[in-house]
Amino acid sequence: MPRMPRSVDLTSVTEWSEGKLRRVEDYLAGEEPLEIRVGRAPLVVTMRTPGHDRELAAGFLLTEGVIQRREQIRALENGSQRAAARDANVVRVRLAAGARFNRKAMKRNSLATAGCGICGRAAIDSVRRRRLAPPNRAFRIPAALLCELPERLVGTQAIFDRTGGLHAAALFDTRGELIASREDVGRHNAVDKVIGWALLEGRLPLAENVLLVSGRGGFEIVQKAIVAGVPVVACVSAPSSLAVQLARELGLTLVGFLRGKRFVVYSGEERLLTG
Amino acid sequence: MPRMPRSVDLTSVTEWSEGKLRRVEDYLAGEEPLEIRVGRAPLVVTMRTPGHDRELAAGFLLTEGVIQRREQIRALENGSQRAAARDANVVRVRLAAGARFNRKAMKRNSLATAGCGICGRAAIDSVRRRRLAPPNRAFRIPAALLCELPERLVGTQAIFDRTGGLHAAALFDTRGELIASREDVGRHNAVDKVIGWALLEGRLPLAENVLLVSGRGGFEIVQKAIVAGVPVVACVSAPSSLAVQLARELGLTLVGFLRGKRFVVYSGEERLLTG
Repeated sequence: MPRMPRSVDLTSVTEWSEGKLRRVEDYLAGEEPLEIRVGRAPLVVTMRTPGHDRELAAGFLLTEGVIQRREQIRALENGSQRAAARDANVVRVRLAAGARFNRKAMKRNSLATAGCGICGRAAIDSVRRRRLAPPNRAFRIPAALLCELPERLVGTQAIFDRTGGLHAAALFDTRGELIASREDVGRHNAVDKVIGWALLEGRLPLAENVLLVSGRGGFEIVQKAIVAGVPVVACVSAPSSLAVQLARELGLTLVGFLRGKRFVVYSGEERLLTG
Repeated sequence: MPRMPRSVDLTSVTEWSEGKLRRVEDYLAGEEPLEIRVGRAPLVVTMRTPGHDRELAAGFLLTEGVIQRREQIRALENGSQRAAARDANVVRVRLAAGARFNRKAMKRNSLATAGCGICGRAAIDSVRRRRLAPPNRAFRIPAALLCELPERLVGTQAIFDRTGGLHAAALFDTRGELIASREDVGRHNAVDKVIGWALLEGRLPLAENVLLVSGRGGFEIVQKAIVAGVPVVACVSAPSSLAVQLARELGLTLVGFLRGKRFVVYSGEERLLTG
């Protein structure tokens, strides 16, 4: 009998501390595969922390370019409504009649396109070709307010608090109020969950929001933020070279090393109000 | 004219610190797509930090089950030997005549197998079905020695030192001597690079080694370690539930939260010598 997937697992472990051993109970962040199906056909399997699976599927479909609007999703069914626990690891997506869905979308957006070569340039152009609306140029936020966001996120990380190791993504409004946060073993999944939440709530584009991510900011994170219309992305750790290049070319504000009373602005500093 | 991919990029950024702004030069960890081709056909595109690309390709082919032995690789060509810079993001693999290569290997190992359902159980069984040799049961290492490994790794992280944000993976011997370390924006890539190095050096299975990874230890990291025959995996941060389950079922020693003079043993504590 398979167990229901859980976001947190409790298990017995041995703690070693300065030569002393003791047996303790410890919480682990859940990790299970999730299959996203469109119609009857599997689209992708991703390892994720169980919970908010419909949001994860919705966010994934949007940020990877399979769909462009909320209305293209007719139904999102989580397998857990069925009997077998293993079905809890499947989300079935039914698209609206007439929704243009090209199963090759993911291939098309992938970088393995013959002829153009494989390079960061091609990766950036593949985002540009999707002709997304540019991030809100009029958005402004006080620079000092950014410094308060990580602390506001920490209080909401229920799984992290128990397991000590998990990625988080959160959306804040112009006043720095947290409006949604999600956790996952994969940073990209945490971002897809929070963007999927916004999509299902009819809140896209996120033109008045800041996206905060734990850890580093890579190309993929910036790409997903641009698709969701987020004007400011802040990372607790370092961004990558390609993330910075993409943010600069598409006009996104990218902040890194957001720790204490200090951060680094890599792109779009005109959106940050100082003094 | 495309630039050659680099492991580190220098760029101008704005540092904000307690209300003061200053323009500084900052190093960024490089991120570029790498395409791995087998023969003429593209196998996969992964975002990675340029450098050690042939090792990354070799490690990926092994840990994902496309090949099983060094001898199955006849040639590994890095495109950078050719003219165009974008070719530097391609590794071409030529397999030995008669090498059994099934392009579906990656599909077969993926979890999206009809019928069995999608669950952690299926993920673990997919590793078990590869009939790998079990990790060396006779391997022993002093528990106290493990605590010294993170510090020994830090000294070798050339890119991390300059950019402040990058994953690392390292191999140590029974005496705790570092024998190889690699860095990457992706933790799985850092592990594939170090395992690929060992494969190309004829050092597999890594039956007398400890694999240390920065950050968390997920299912994928434990899976790759098992394929390479590593008996002990140590993570600086938390493992996931499925990583622990896989380590326990396949007899791998899994250590987490390796910080200072303390760590947690999730599986296989018989390999750690105390007192």
